[in-house]
Amino acid sequence: MTDDETRVLVRDLYAAYARGDSARVADMIDDEIDWIIYGPVQVFSFTGARRGKAAVLETLAGVAAEYALDRYQPEIIVVDGERAAVMSNVAFVQRATGRTLSFRNASFLRFRNGRVVEFREFSDTFDVVEQALGRWLVV
Amino acid sequence: MTDDETRVLVRDLYAAYARGDSARVADMIDDEIDWIIYGPVQVFSFTGARRGKAAVLETLAGVAAEYALDRYQPEIIVVDGERAAVMSNVAFVQRATGRTLSFRNASFLRFRNGRVVEFREFSDTFDVVEQALGRWLVV
Repeated sequence: MTDDETRVLVRDLYAAYARGDSARVADMIDDEIDWIIYGPVQVFSFTGARRGKAAVLETLAGVAAEYALDRYQPEIIVVDGERAAVMSNVAFVQRATGRTLSFRNASFLRFRNGRVVEFREFSDTFDVVEQALGRWLVV
Repeated sequence: MTDDETRVLVRDLYAAYARGDSARVADMIDDEIDWIIYGPVQVFSFTGARRGKAAVLETLAGVAAEYALDRYQPEIIVVDGERAAVMSNVAFVQRATGRTLSFRNASFLRFRNGRVVEFREFSDTFDVVEQALGRWLVV
């Protein structure tokens, strides 16, 4: 895959997610995807490792059940052959409380045949947990 | 800058940091660097925004004063013109307690004239804080 092909895929994927086009997002996920969102599962049930498209779609549905997407703006996109990394400025509204969680995240993606086959995502989870709980963590 | 030039710089920088060559690391930091490590400053004094080489070197010295580097292995390196993103598998020993903190992090870098002029770093700070405190956070 060329960098330009990967760049088109990344923009397509993030635009689809940002506009809530879950069918297009699902189209772009490989059946064998290896997926991790790093974070505390006791606060965010959608964090942790997943294997395969069905598990990932279930996880994305879980995010959407708890949070309404408010903003998803890629600020840095780095592409290199079949791989990409994206830093985004995002906001989600916690449906149960109406609280807005606003933060940046960092994702690493690998594509195969036009679909995401590897995904890793990081955020400053200490901060995001405080936003989700609506209180400071005691340290 | 070509991708190959950037790839050489990234490998040089991470190898220098991994072997504790702080002089070489310092050589590769731009005077005007714009730097953020995302994380809770009440636990990790070296997190937050820094501007300029002197502030960044002071911050790196602060990390080294509290933590001995045990492992710094880049697992994914993505380069794209003057930009790069790196996912690393790292471990640090907390000098005060002997505890080892083991985690992955994600960095976004931009180079100018062979030096890092922009830096952003993410890790699963909820997990890393628990490792640093040696106890679970109450949520």
